Amino acid sequence: MEKTYIKQLYRETDKFIDKEISISGWVRTERVSKNFGFIELNDGSFFKNIQIVFDDKLNNFEEISKLSISSSLTVEGKIVLTPEAKQPFEIHASNIIIEGLSSSDYPLQKKRHSLEFLRTIAHLRPRSNTFSAVFRVRSLAAYAVHKFFQEKGFVYVNTPIITCSDCEGAGEMFRITTLDLNNIPKDKDGNVDFSKDFFGKEANLTVSGQLSAETYALAFRNVYTFGPTFRAEDSNTARHAAEFWMIEPEMAFAELKDYMDVAEDMVKYIINYVMENAPEEMEFFNSFIDKELFNRLNNVLSSDFVRISYTKAVELLQKSGEAFQYPVEWGIDLQTEHERYLTEKVFKKPVFVTDYPKDIKAFYMRQNDDNKTVAAADLLVPGIGEIIGGSQREERLDVLEKRMEELNLNKEDYWWYLELRKYGETKHSGFGLGFERILMYLTGISNIRDVIPFPRTTGSAEF
Amino acid sequence: MEKTYIKQLYRETDKFIDKEISISGWVRTERVSKNFGFIELNDGSFFKNIQIVFDDKLNNFEEISKLSISSSLTVEGKIVLTPEAKQPFEIHASNIIIEGLSSSDYPLQKKRHSLEFLRTIAHLRPRSNTFSAVFRVRSLAAYAVHKFFQEKGFVYVNTPIITCSDCEGAGEMFRITTLDLNNIPKDKDGNVDFSKDFFGKEANLTVSGQLSAETYALAFRNVYTFGPTFRAEDSNTARHAAEFWMIEPEMAFAELKDYMDVAEDMVKYIINYVMENAPEEMEFFNSFIDKELFNRLNNVLSSDFVRISYTKAVELLQKSGEAFQYPVEWGIDLQTEHERYLTEKVFKKPVFVTDYPKDIKAFYMRQNDDNKTVAAADLLVPGIGEIIGGSQREERLDVLEKRMEELNLNKEDYWWYLELRKYGETKHSGFGLGFERILMYLTGISNIRDVIPFPRTTGSAEF
Repeated sequence: MEKTYIKQLYRETDKFIDKEISISGWVRTERVSKNFGFIELNDGSFFKNIQIVFDDKLNNFEEISKLSISSSLTVEGKIVLTPEAKQPFEIHASNIIIEGLSSSDYPLQKKRHSLEFLRTIAHLRPRSNTFSAVFRVRSLAAYAVHKFFQEKGFVYVNTPIITCSDCEGAGEMFRITTLDLNNIPKDKDGNVDFSKDFFGKEANLTVSGQLSAETYALAFRNVYTFGPTFRAEDSNTARHAAEFWMIEPEMAFAELKDYMDVAEDMVKYIINYVMENAPEEMEFFNSFIDKELFNRLNNVLSSDFVRISYTKAVELLQKSGEAFQYPVEWGIDLQTEHERYLTEKVFKKPVFVTDYPKDIKAFYMRQNDDNKTVAAADLLVPGIGEIIGGSQREERLDVLEKRMEELNLNKEDYWWYLELRKYGETKHSGFGLGFERILMYLTGISNIRDVIPFPRTTGSAEF
Repeated sequence: MEKTYIKQLYRETDKFIDKEISISGWVRTERVSKNFGFIELNDGSFFKNIQIVFDDKLNNFEEISKLSISSSLTVEGKIVLTPEAKQPFEIHASNIIIEGLSSSDYPLQKKRHSLEFLRTIAHLRPRSNTFSAVFRVRSLAAYAVHKFFQEKGFVYVNTPIITCSDCEGAGEMFRITTLDLNNIPKDKDGNVDFSKDFFGKEANLTVSGQLSAETYALAFRNVYTFGPTFRAEDSNTARHAAEFWMIEPEMAFAELKDYMDVAEDMVKYIINYVMENAPEEMEFFNSFIDKELFNRLNNVLSSDFVRISYTKAVELLQKSGEAFQYPVEWGIDLQTEHERYLTEKVFKKPVFVTDYPKDIKAFYMRQNDDNKTVAAADLLVPGIGEIIGGSQREERLDVLEKRMEELNLNKEDYWWYLELRKYGETKHSGFGLGFERILMYLTGISNIRDVIPFPRTTGSAEF
């Protein structure tokens, strides 16, 4: 008999009514009376379970009556509509084959577990409702990202994970080595002899694919990366992980406003795609994780995002009369409290803040004519604050070189990045979106450890 | 004026004929006569260029006549059909704006360059025909992988890159550390004190996401990973890189034949998708890189893949009368020469070889009843040899533990992997496909360094 998935039963019910089918999955719950019983079976293809009805006509009724939670079964039987019941249909089993019994010490018994506890069983937690929903949404959101950019003709580029250029934030990078740490080779000055290492020099894990992506934007016009990035930051917060995935699009012949247009479209596209393709999961999040979720997401979908300058934002904050923990004056980096005030209290929708002071932004951002600000824009959203950072890139070789000198960056390390400005420079722009950040926004889950299958944080890399 | 992409001009020509458009891109070639000239412009959206015709009615005719290769332009003008000419249409320019002149030392002048030379300018090589085609195909093939699995309801899971379990091939792993290599902390026995390292213990870059993916297959039934993996192998061949991308699907309630069905469908799907969506690029490869390409790919598409046992394969090789470099007897690992003989000479199409001797395969592969072989299958294709490796996984806890003991594996390191067999085990299967390997197969490109944007190999991690 052809195997059927629970998702098919829910999505194409008509095809299966009164038909004999075969289905495989894991027991979520079981209730047994004298000579009949009910099993809630989940097969991972769908958020919801299917109810199996069985009775003592099964020759293994005895055994089936005592199934432990998470035992795996293959069930043959008929799909029957149940208009009177909570569930739309059920399976009347004619045969139940036990594939694998679960041990009675299965840690995910039917009761509410804390998210903290579930992190300690990261190999089993996707079998819980919450994580079944989270990781199905993660998969759909990742696909939505690819679909959005591919439909727009962007070329997906796998920028390198191992890098020898310590572009930004070298202090926060993980070193990669094949040297024997018990026996480090030294050069004649007594320093580590990296010429003996695998790549013949110091190598690290990337913190961003942006600079590499720019090289491809200047060939393919529109490109995006989507891959893992790393920060060896020693910060134990709910929003930081040492390993996370980033989406970094780069566009040639594109100014700051072009980036903002694409970013706005992308955010809406991802939300729409997930709402359409995971309605059951999203209902679950809205009911059990964050009751404001749908309000917030629908507000994003129906809004035209605001665009105001940093200078104007600072004025609004100063005039607000709010007692901020961090006082506001022109030149400061906006804190989450400021960002949330702007997007939640002032505008009540997503806001791009543009044209930040150059001293708080990266060297590659394009300098504005005022000589004080750069063509950068951060997207702030209600409930979180900053979710995307982007800018127009400095395409003028002389301006870029001057800025690098001011910041004491070694131009030789960036020779290929600088060459892009020699051989057919164009105005170009790009942005970065932390994938986990948008997943937290989509699900209402408040700890980054709960949207990454096996999270890596300071002192923790289990499984 | 709304900006137009060259791809739109080729794909939806009718919409643009005799219309005024604006297009931006980079000069590939220029020819100038006394009072008019031609520019081949490429904008990265499409493999082909568009011809720009201009004359001395332009007020910057003088300047436009002396453009260096790779200068970037924005051109306004009218699309005119050219039924007599090689190209189907051209733009009659009414205005040409120079965005960025290219320096005259631009290294990609119009002549044939060796692939070796182009590797030294990996930041510019996507502007060449060959690499424009390769990396557009890479992007499309990646999307085809996602599309194939998403349409089948597989959940995409991002398995961790940083891992503390040194599952397979520890010797070939890259270590990750934040310890100061000039000043390594030691414990009281004089060994490296990894408790001081970022994760509080030894950490490495993953060589495979399989074991983690299995945990998710036993929750979602069908899952796949697609991410970077790493080997610190000191081998300088055309087929090995230190950093490459792998596709690793895992399926619960699936036997060996189910994996083979899915793998066969997947390979055909990827080929079809790329042929349909990159016909110009594929034509280019077939004409200039490998004249057998279309024959080979079409043969794969139209074949039902052969499935024969290892034992049978060994018999065929022994009876062949071929003078193999490596002599054939039952128990050996098949070499590329053997694989290619089977698939090119015997069957002339893709072949799954199944049920290998257990001693040459990994500990997690399911033992067959003969006690000698495991339910593994490798897919061999003409022109390359092995392209996919997969197996049914050992789901029986006692058999798995016994095998791990035989191989002196530390069971405590695998506690979570073993627990999968305690809590609702199912027959399950999965496979691994090196993404670059299928790209080489799709393009005819013979060196892995030429299908990775910025390749990392022994002694080399430039850019």
